[in-house]
Amino acid sequence: MPAFSFHVTHTSGRARAGVMKLPRGEVKTPVFMPVGTLGTVKSLDPDDLVSLGAQIILGNTYHLYLRPGMEVIGKFGSLHRFMAWDRPILTDSGGFQVFSLADLKTITDEGVAFRSHIDGSGHLLTPESVIDIQDALGSDIAMVLDECIPYPAEYERAEKALATTFLWARRSQDRWREADRGGRALFGIVQGGMFPDLRRRAVEELLALDFPGYAAGGLSVGEPRQEMMDTAELTFGLLPEDKPRYGMGLGRPEDLVDLVDRGADMFDCVMPTRNARNGQMFTSRGAINIANAKYKDDPRPVDASCTCPACRRFSRAYLRHLYISRELLSYRLNTLHNLCFYLTLMDKMRRAIVEDRFAAFRRGFLDRMAEGG
Amino acid sequence: MPAFSFHVTHTSGRARAGVMKLPRGEVKTPVFMPVGTLGTVKSLDPDDLVSLGAQIILGNTYHLYLRPGMEVIGKFGSLHRFMAWDRPILTDSGGFQVFSLADLKTITDEGVAFRSHIDGSGHLLTPESVIDIQDALGSDIAMVLDECIPYPAEYERAEKALATTFLWARRSQDRWREADRGGRALFGIVQGGMFPDLRRRAVEELLALDFPGYAAGGLSVGEPRQEMMDTAELTFGLLPEDKPRYGMGLGRPEDLVDLVDRGADMFDCVMPTRNARNGQMFTSRGAINIANAKYKDDPRPVDASCTCPACRRFSRAYLRHLYISRELLSYRLNTLHNLCFYLTLMDKMRRAIVEDRFAAFRRGFLDRMAEGG
Repeated sequence: MPAFSFHVTHTSGRARAGVMKLPRGEVKTPVFMPVGTLGTVKSLDPDDLVSLGAQIILGNTYHLYLRPGMEVIGKFGSLHRFMAWDRPILTDSGGFQVFSLADLKTITDEGVAFRSHIDGSGHLLTPESVIDIQDALGSDIAMVLDECIPYPAEYERAEKALATTFLWARRSQDRWREADRGGRALFGIVQGGMFPDLRRRAVEELLALDFPGYAAGGLSVGEPRQEMMDTAELTFGLLPEDKPRYGMGLGRPEDLVDLVDRGADMFDCVMPTRNARNGQMFTSRGAINIANAKYKDDPRPVDASCTCPACRRFSRAYLRHLYISRELLSYRLNTLHNLCFYLTLMDKMRRAIVEDRFAAFRRGFLDRMAEGG
Repeated sequence: MPAFSFHVTHTSGRARAGVMKLPRGEVKTPVFMPVGTLGTVKSLDPDDLVSLGAQIILGNTYHLYLRPGMEVIGKFGSLHRFMAWDRPILTDSGGFQVFSLADLKTITDEGVAFRSHIDGSGHLLTPESVIDIQDALGSDIAMVLDECIPYPAEYERAEKALATTFLWARRSQDRWREADRGGRALFGIVQGGMFPDLRRRAVEELLALDFPGYAAGGLSVGEPRQEMMDTAELTFGLLPEDKPRYGMGLGRPEDLVDLVDRGADMFDCVMPTRNARNGQMFTSRGAINIANAKYKDDPRPVDASCTCPACRRFSRAYLRHLYISRELLSYRLNTLHNLCFYLTLMDKMRRAIVEDRFAAFRRGFLDRMAEGG
């Protein structure tokens, strides 16, 4: 098994195009990872994702650990085999979900004790157990356990959480290095709230551990967009050129373009899939709400320039009817459309970087999005 | 446009194989029509249905008339174009739904006044308006408006409803004959409750009107299976050899086999699709409930002999996990499986009839179904 590698092949301003080598295949960056919380990108199957051009998906360790549980997935050898997806999977550490979903959290240096949001059962996640779980999932890219803080947070709270996060990062890496992981990689996570000096300290400490990739965590947690963008820009600017930079949980299409412009390589976000289920569909001229009465008998596709299975065959009127009627097909078609939009956007950005015209692409994209349909 | 035609090409005992010619294509019988209530077979799109081998689907006039309404579908010229399905569609008359779903029904000779189950709005459906609606839907096979009675029903009630049904059948046909319907067909519906003499009278009266096809209505409304089977057998036995015989709303896999054995050609039923959404999956050794704890880590497909997209790729454990987690993909995969089971069953029956070994096929099928997995 070749070692994990990442190479930046092209730049355009600060925007980068690269290639990441993982045991289950290459991933071309910048890349968007559809979120497959419970072993399925909601409403889609693996063939759909391949058709859409998804290179890598994200699985949620917290959710999978609770349901179906590691005993079941362990029997299949990996999450990949359980869900019949043979391309790479990145799993988060569960940190974010424990802090946002679970009940009765108790954080100690040891780890985080909590009660399941599903059945109230008690659990303890430690940096080590989270590595073991991700190993059992067969994650191609695993993430360290981190302490996630709400927004806004006091400086002292953020500083204390950062100390825990660093302690856990070191222990995560120790556990990871106990075995040959066959070319899979463990990424570090930069926390520090919206405080520049804490972000700087976080990067400094993590760089000393020399992870093969780094994520900016703790963003898009309720802060104003400018604050998110400033913190991301600072963080990505401090990270090494030769390692992939991952913006966790980001973002809107405009955010992805602005973050690639600031040197980000990887993204995941529930927005395209969750918003699809709420009737919001992304188009090259901004998002539309398919429930809008003006689409009642509109024979046009949602986006005439889109090649997704929904736009190729169905009208806005039909998609509106399905959505209003809460038909299951609605969620599927809207999801196919939104993911197609996101994945196509990544392709377009990559091409613009390779051809060194990213700034012009970005300007044109943002102008059209602001224009509206 | 060639005229509607139906030819029985093979028989095996009373079981028949035939070909029905419709404007949008040929339909080989015996045939099962997946139910596409609101312009979608729930969770599936037209490509899925083509992949499964569906030759014709059913649309519900009552539901489509209320949502999205005829103004919207009218703008597209047909239900086919609205939902992007270019094979034949049979639409029911809405009679069954008005009587089972709508509020404040008032039946007069004129028609049936009711309030929508969605928003309480008032509507009147008449034999004529129901023909006009089905014409606007572009139905390849339309059905006459009939009065549906609950089970059990008093003889007098059934007799009175039958008189109304006959009056409406005649008026439906009059309206149908006002225009050239381009090779599309209007079928009559035999009612009469579970009363043999009323069923006989119904057939006699309808035959005088000379419809191109006949349905047995008012079955599977709560009566014991033997009573359903006896009434269906009586009805199909009275219908002409050279016209298609349609068992409306029927039935379980075992019912389809027993009804083909009694000379039925066409079926529709929500069972494969609705039960899929409730976790019941049909297999060659009987139905299973995928929620069952014994499938928790079962790596086998639901049915090793099944070629559907769910059985080709996924384990019982994965399908159970999706179902337990209420994942949208669960409903889709279960539906694909159950419809594949139904449509494959029809294919197998047809082949057995063509090869004149239907009795042996039936015995083998029913034995295996009773055996259990």
